[in-house]
Amino acid sequence: MSYTDIPGNVTAPQGFRAAAMNCGVKPDKPDLVLIHSDHPAAAAATLTTNQFRAAPTYVTESVVADGAARTIVANSGNANCATGAQGLANAQRMGQAAAAATGVLPAEVVVCSTGVIGHQLPIEKIEAGIAALGGQLGQTDPETIARSIMTTDTYPKAVSIEFDLGGTPARIGGICKGAGMIHPNMATMLAFFTTDAPIVPELLRKALRDAVNVSFNCISVDGDQSTNDTVAILANGACGALTIECEDDPRYPVFADALRYCCTVQAQRIAWDGEGASKRITIDITGARTWDEARQIGRHLANYTLLKVAYWARDFNWGRIAAGAGAAGVPIDTSRVNIDWCGIRTFAAGEPQAFDVAAGRQALAADDIAITVDLGLGDACCTVWTCDLTPAYIEFNAIDEL
Amino acid sequence: MSYTDIPGNVTAPQGFRAAAMNCGVKPDKPDLVLIHSDHPAAAAATLTTNQFRAAPTYVTESVVADGAARTIVANSGNANCATGAQGLANAQRMGQAAAAATGVLPAEVVVCSTGVIGHQLPIEKIEAGIAALGGQLGQTDPETIARSIMTTDTYPKAVSIEFDLGGTPARIGGICKGAGMIHPNMATMLAFFTTDAPIVPELLRKALRDAVNVSFNCISVDGDQSTNDTVAILANGACGALTIECEDDPRYPVFADALRYCCTVQAQRIAWDGEGASKRITIDITGARTWDEARQIGRHLANYTLLKVAYWARDFNWGRIAAGAGAAGVPIDTSRVNIDWCGIRTFAAGEPQAFDVAAGRQALAADDIAITVDLGLGDACCTVWTCDLTPAYIEFNAIDEL
Repeated sequence: MSYTDIPGNVTAPQGFRAAAMNCGVKPDKPDLVLIHSDHPAAAAATLTTNQFRAAPTYVTESVVADGAARTIVANSGNANCATGAQGLANAQRMGQAAAAATGVLPAEVVVCSTGVIGHQLPIEKIEAGIAALGGQLGQTDPETIARSIMTTDTYPKAVSIEFDLGGTPARIGGICKGAGMIHPNMATMLAFFTTDAPIVPELLRKALRDAVNVSFNCISVDGDQSTNDTVAILANGACGALTIECEDDPRYPVFADALRYCCTVQAQRIAWDGEGASKRITIDITGARTWDEARQIGRHLANYTLLKVAYWARDFNWGRIAAGAGAAGVPIDTSRVNIDWCGIRTFAAGEPQAFDVAAGRQALAADDIAITVDLGLGDACCTVWTCDLTPAYIEFNAIDEL
Repeated sequence: MSYTDIPGNVTAPQGFRAAAMNCGVKPDKPDLVLIHSDHPAAAAATLTTNQFRAAPTYVTESVVADGAARTIVANSGNANCATGAQGLANAQRMGQAAAAATGVLPAEVVVCSTGVIGHQLPIEKIEAGIAALGGQLGQTDPETIARSIMTTDTYPKAVSIEFDLGGTPARIGGICKGAGMIHPNMATMLAFFTTDAPIVPELLRKALRDAVNVSFNCISVDGDQSTNDTVAILANGACGALTIECEDDPRYPVFADALRYCCTVQAQRIAWDGEGASKRITIDITGARTWDEARQIGRHLANYTLLKVAYWARDFNWGRIAAGAGAAGVPIDTSRVNIDWCGIRTFAAGEPQAFDVAAGRQALAADDIAITVDLGLGDACCTVWTCDLTPAYIEFNAIDEL
């Protein structure tokens, strides 16, 4: 399915406005954003499973529990994580400030933070910024909105599409950030989506969960799961169609597909804009017994350090694919396995294959690298996206960016 | 318990001889070793759990199944992994050649390989080398024996001790190699031990398994589990004492402690000589509900990329310890957690602590770095060893060394 790109990211859907600014968490770049629906909206979010979850994730979890929210507030530059009781109070104060600034209840405000761990937020600066942003909704250009949540990303990541929802044009828009500490099951990543499609909270939650599973949960930069990961969506129904109330409504899969498309595009951008990355890696695991097993192997390969180095080094050492696939904790029968790298079959049905090593090295010069591991055990498959590991990643992380 | 170091590594125990040479797998360095007991010996081994296990691990598994073996043959420079039917035949030929060269049965020969994956062994060169080594047993200096299994190690790793086994002096000797693809549950590492202590195979197996669990299975360089990992031990009883036949024999814990000491020393050397490593990291997880949970968190921290970079960068960013501990998949209560880094308490009972950041940075200048995460949940604890991740690791792995 292809979609028509439109401008505006989170403000492309009807009835959403946003504003962003620098409030002083970072020295100069935008570090605070407010996204607001002019109408009541269904809301859903998926959150990190890290045991050291950041304070705002507790606030957001509670806010979306009833399936409704109207405002998203987020800062970059400070994760508000491992900050104890004061951190939780500060996250609540962020929500209260955003509620006051947008004229909603605190229970309608999704709160997010990203940045360095273990430092208290400069909450007064953030509160002052939020109050100012309340009067600027709709006045910030979309690129600045997307830039406001960036940490080490090299470019702002935004998407907005229009699609036909059973005869009515509807829209989904989104911004996200990633770069480091990126691992399936959510990482140091934030992704916000808005839509003017009308849908009840239960189905919005299901559509988001299904979309996240095959997108944000199928990427990895460094295997490091983060403390703040949040994907949140607000659906305000402003496109004017009747509400999608059951899964049998033929418009439900239309909406779910459009959301999956937006999530996948954004997830790939996060994976491929990993810190220090120089290549875009796509790993297909096919012929698995189950999707879970396919994903487990794909994710393990995406994190396999020696393989991530090989991409960068143009070292066509396919044995690292075999070793990585074998270390994922999934039972496989090596005599049924085929391994293709950049279209070159290196291993087939248990036997190493003769191939032109020079051609392999040459193939690794490309920016896009594809690996397929066919397990020969079943019909399930999964695609995982990652990047290479380069000396720049290490130098990048030598000092935490704000 | 402290032990007396003696020279000789695997030939320090009575009744063991060894020989090593370059047989042409590598361009010049020693790449083939034969270790032989002049007497029948009990044998035990622990092997990689990688699904893409190398051919020799199947041979070794079958050889040690009956608890007896007399010879170990190993080559470096080629892993004989992902090599199909021919690879298995070649591993068997290595065993047969070593059996002929040392006058034992093929079923008494432990076979090991380490090196690059996916290439067939130059088996004729190896067979010729093994035949030559049969006539040179006892003529190779111990350092060359230890060097023969090195791949990217920066120095040969050898240990030999003498201890009092209920009134009779007994000895344990060992060599090992590691460097890359090092992860708990065995990695691209080989470790061979010999002992002249007399012990039945069942107890030798138990002592080895227990020792490996708290040593080689508690180290990590890069999180990449390998295809060839093997720890093997031969016990020939040549010290002259009566055989240890039951766990209640007071000499069993004496032997088990001595073996654990040798395994721990060698495991630390592997962890701290990781490819490109510049620091020795020791991670203590205390106050856990169970040892398994403590080890799971310790291993996760040992592999947490951003933390491994922080050691190298002298970035006293303790939030990465929290994030890594929280991502290990073990339920914890952050309000009970204490985190100490280089003796500085950074987090206590759920709250970040005030400390001198400059002192933290200064502490990270040391070669030895200690982390303690106290979970406050129970009495179990585990120590894990690892190294830092440096740009040199990546450059190291750009081209596979033979």
